[in-house]
Amino acid sequence: MSNNLLNGKKGIIFGALDDKSIAWAVAEKCVEQGAEIVLTNAPVALRFGAINQLAEKLNTIVIPCDATDMEQIETLFTQSMEHLGGKVDFVLHAIGMSINVRKKRSYTDLNHEWMKKTFDISAISFHRVMQVAYKMDAINDWGSIVALTYMAAQRTFPDYSEMAESKALLESFARSFGYHYGVRNKVRVNTISQSPTVTTAGSGVKGFDSFFDYADQMSPLGNASAASCADYCVAMFSDLTKMITMQNLFHDGGFSMMGINAAALQS
Amino acid sequence: MSNNLLNGKKGIIFGALDDKSIAWAVAEKCVEQGAEIVLTNAPVALRFGAINQLAEKLNTIVIPCDATDMEQIETLFTQSMEHLGGKVDFVLHAIGMSINVRKKRSYTDLNHEWMKKTFDISAISFHRVMQVAYKMDAINDWGSIVALTYMAAQRTFPDYSEMAESKALLESFARSFGYHYGVRNKVRVNTISQSPTVTTAGSGVKGFDSFFDYADQMSPLGNASAASCADYCVAMFSDLTKMITMQNLFHDGGFSMMGINAAALQS
Amino acid sequence: MSNNLLNGKKGIIFGALDDKSIAWAVAEKCVEQGAEIVLTNAPVALRFGAINQLAEKLNTIVIPCDATDMEQIETLFTQSMEHLGGKVDFVLHAIGMSINVRKKRSYTDLNHEWMKKTFDISAISFHRVMQVAYKMDAINDWGSIVALTYMAAQRTFPDYSEMAESKALLESFARSFGYHYGVRNKVRVNTISQSPTVTTAGSGVKGFDSFFDYADQMSPLGNASAASCADYCVAMFSDLTKMITMQNLFHDGGFSMMGINAAALQS
Amino acid sequence: MSNNLLNGKKGIIFGALDDKSIAWAVAEKCVEQGAEIVLTNAPVALRFGAINQLAEKLNTIVIPCDATDMEQIETLFTQSMEHLGGKVDFVLHAIGMSINVRKKRSYTDLNHEWMKKTFDISAISFHRVMQVAYKMDAINDWGSIVALTYMAAQRTFPDYSEMAESKALLESFARSFGYHYGVRNKVRVNTISQSPTVTTAGSGVKGFDSFFDYADQMSPLGNASAASCADYCVAMFSDLTKMITMQNLFHDGGFSMMGINAAALQS
Repeated sequence: MSNNLLNGKKGIIFGALDDKSIAWAVAEKCVEQGAEIVLTNAPVALRFGAINQLAEKLNTIVIPCDATDMEQIETLFTQSMEHLGGKVDFVLHAIGMSINVRKKRSYTDLNHEWMKKTFDISAISFHRVMQVAYKMDAINDWGSIVALTYMAAQRTFPDYSEMAESKALLESFARSFGYHYGVRNKVRVNTISQSPTVTTAGSGVKGFDSFFDYADQMSPLGNASAASCADYCVAMFSDLTKMITMQNLFHDGGFSMMGINAAALQS
Repeated sequence: MSNNLLNGKKGIIFGALDDKSIAWAVAEKCVEQGAEIVLTNAPVALRFGAINQLAEKLNTIVIPCDATDMEQIETLFTQSMEHLGGKVDFVLHAIGMSINVRKKRSYTDLNHEWMKKTFDISAISFHRVMQVAYKMDAINDWGSIVALTYMAAQRTFPDYSEMAESKALLESFARSFGYHYGVRNKVRVNTISQSPTVTTAGSGVKGFDSFFDYADQMSPLGNASAASCADYCVAMFSDLTKMITMQNLFHDGGFSMMGINAAALQS
Repeated sequence: MSNNLLNGKKGIIFGALDDKSIAWAVAEKCVEQGAEIVLTNAPVALRFGAINQLAEKLNTIVIPCDATDMEQIETLFTQSMEHLGGKVDFVLHAIGMSINVRKKRSYTDLNHEWMKKTFDISAISFHRVMQVAYKMDAINDWGSIVALTYMAAQRTFPDYSEMAESKALLESFARSFGYHYGVRNKVRVNTISQSPTVTTAGSGVKGFDSFFDYADQMSPLGNASAASCADYCVAMFSDLTKMITMQNLFHDGGFSMMGINAAALQS
Repeated sequence: MSNNLLNGKKGIIFGALDDKSIAWAVAEKCVEQGAEIVLTNAPVALRFGAINQLAEKLNTIVIPCDATDMEQIETLFTQSMEHLGGKVDFVLHAIGMSINVRKKRSYTDLNHEWMKKTFDISAISFHRVMQVAYKMDAINDWGSIVALTYMAAQRTFPDYSEMAESKALLESFARSFGYHYGVRNKVRVNTISQSPTVTTAGSGVKGFDSFFDYADQMSPLGNASAASCADYCVAMFSDLTKMITMQNLFHDGGFSMMGINAAALQS
């Protein structure tokens, strides 16, 4: 059901891979709410995913972009503004990948070159995107930028490995750049710290299923789904939340505020 | 402009005094977005305020309620459900008053009986309202409860005095009751930590004007107004935020995340 | 083993009941480290506890004091300074009791008069003690005040009930009074957030044993004992920590920073 | 004055440059308290600093080590254990340098290759040091690792630039590795978040002097000095704090807990 919350707004959505992706759901909901969007993902992700189907369904285009490459990000913004016919109002950053996790390296035996690559992909890319947008003045005043994060930035989930550091970095970029973009353009920058979600990426983490169930039982409302995360992104892109910036916002059914829950213990 | 975000929803709004009140703005925006509401305030506030004008404008009723009295809260819910024709979907708690501040007692010379009265009015009332609603099963599943708070719960603003403790208490009630109400009814409970706002209540605090300006310059987006706070309350009452609970949400133009800002220093 | 860390320092220790009490261990360690102390507890606790044995062992006195009564607190400070021959350097507040928990009232069915009594005993007493000391100028410059708290102030542990709010209140008093006492006398005020501890008081909470084991397995270092908490109190009373104030300090083997731990899940 | 708090303990101190360095003060205090230590710094820092004078004064050696190079860290631990005659009990990480700040790049115009180098020097080096120690099993059970950090990891201080992200990363490494090292060896890992300090490194930041004064006036106890930070490090290396791990500990005269302070406003 549409409330036309994003009528007239234009956005760029990073990170939709397939229909389990949070970014996929966000793209659908944004269009449903009246926005015009452009989809983007890394060239390698484009080959393996189904993003072109999404583009077709939403009547838009896919612009390939490796978010660790400044020139490709510039091209993305240039082509997006051409396609959308003007500056952008919102951006979703939903990018994350850990090479050390993929290679099954223990946290006490990490390869630090891979770590730096992980940070570049998962976090520095966020600064890159904002820096390019800022320099090109590509975002309208009162625009909204959101990145997806996870609570491992605050507390330790051992299997999450170096992605904990990636998310800590990501959230820090939101605060730091949020200051600069806020002062110049009233653009707000926030991160949404989402429940564990059954995505193609998330499921790859070791022991994901039992962890998912644990979080679900610990959370008074249960785990938040990709669809409800998309609803929340819509709220954060809309004019209802214009004065919220530099925040990390938990969207997790209450998990982050729980110390213990008998239900989770007995499972 | 309405997006019909609250179509079919019913709510109770505590704390509208006059047209500077945040609760006043919330009531107007909720009705604009399609909700049916009931207004309430303490009998003494009803005498001095303009709440009846608001009720007339919004075509609703005012039910007097001293939120430190369990029987009056029960009556409020009973009459509200009668008037609204069913259970409630959202509640705004916007109640706060410090007797020691009003009596100009220094923080190192407080009267502790007054302090307990302050806590009862400003914070325990929130537990009372939720306990009554919970026992009467007066809130629909997936309902939303919001209380207004201030960052003095986290950091020290000396002139705020014992209201710091009141807000710490209020936010703790949100977490604790949020657990219980979430588990039984999926009802979410959150607090919104708002910028200093020029209300009849807020302005009473010593040195308010210079503090207001300081916060305005420290915040990258400036201070959030009552109107934008009302927008945010609408988002929190809507179905876009169903999985957020037990959180304290800063709505402050970025103030809470600032360490220093040259603009604020030079003012 | 003594390092003479508290040589020449004088202190008041609230809350030693029996040899399982954290305050008991703190008193012993402080004396071992060269401090002179005075013990105090509520008259009712004196009847049931073994505090006189501790006083004998440590060659000091017990001064009865109901910490909800300003006159008794004044008497305590007057008599303590007489006994110790001068102003006080440190104070330990280890007082907490919930009437609603004792009466087994559910969190959604609390008696609010009992709640206010709980707050008075467990938290407002802390403000009272500091206010009396501040007015009497009874604490030397660079003195140190510590209160014991629990992480339920930040996250929800349902069985902890209204003690969550008591601890939120207590920690807020530390921040607020820490400001005033710091500015005037460089006195620092902090709270130590301790692991669940097998004390006569702690054990009374429902399901304490299984919770204790859960916390022990969740914490990378295991639960912190009363003895190690006493060591930490010594550090906080010593001159090694003169610039730490208004903080809530977790002393919990790492529990507070854990999101999940396979060891805790499998137990 | 010595309390022999570190008698029999062996430590490695990174980062002493000259007598304004916090690490310099830590080295002196640790030796005063009975520890045996080894000093280390990057080869380039050795050339410009006065660390050899410190080594002479403390009757110890300097082992050059580029903390971004795994082999050099291995050599450091091997030679340290040889010199000290056994495993290490404590480590201080006091390393930080931002290339973009040094090159005066604006935060909205950063060079991302420099940023990665900054992260490697200032934060990843901490993971490297712990990984090497962990693999070599070079730290005794119940050992203590401390890294120095700054509150820019939590809140925005615009001039601090990418060092905000470096410190967020550093603190995340403390939590993550603290878990693993705690579980295997009861080794604790913490960060100390220190007031702005007049060091050769700290003073390089733009507008440092006025910021130093602002922080000094905002803090109820004033800014913490390098000497008092060293006292606190001694406490954290001693057996008085064995159960504290994965924490970020503010050592700042109360700055972090202040919302506003009339003294700072009027300056």
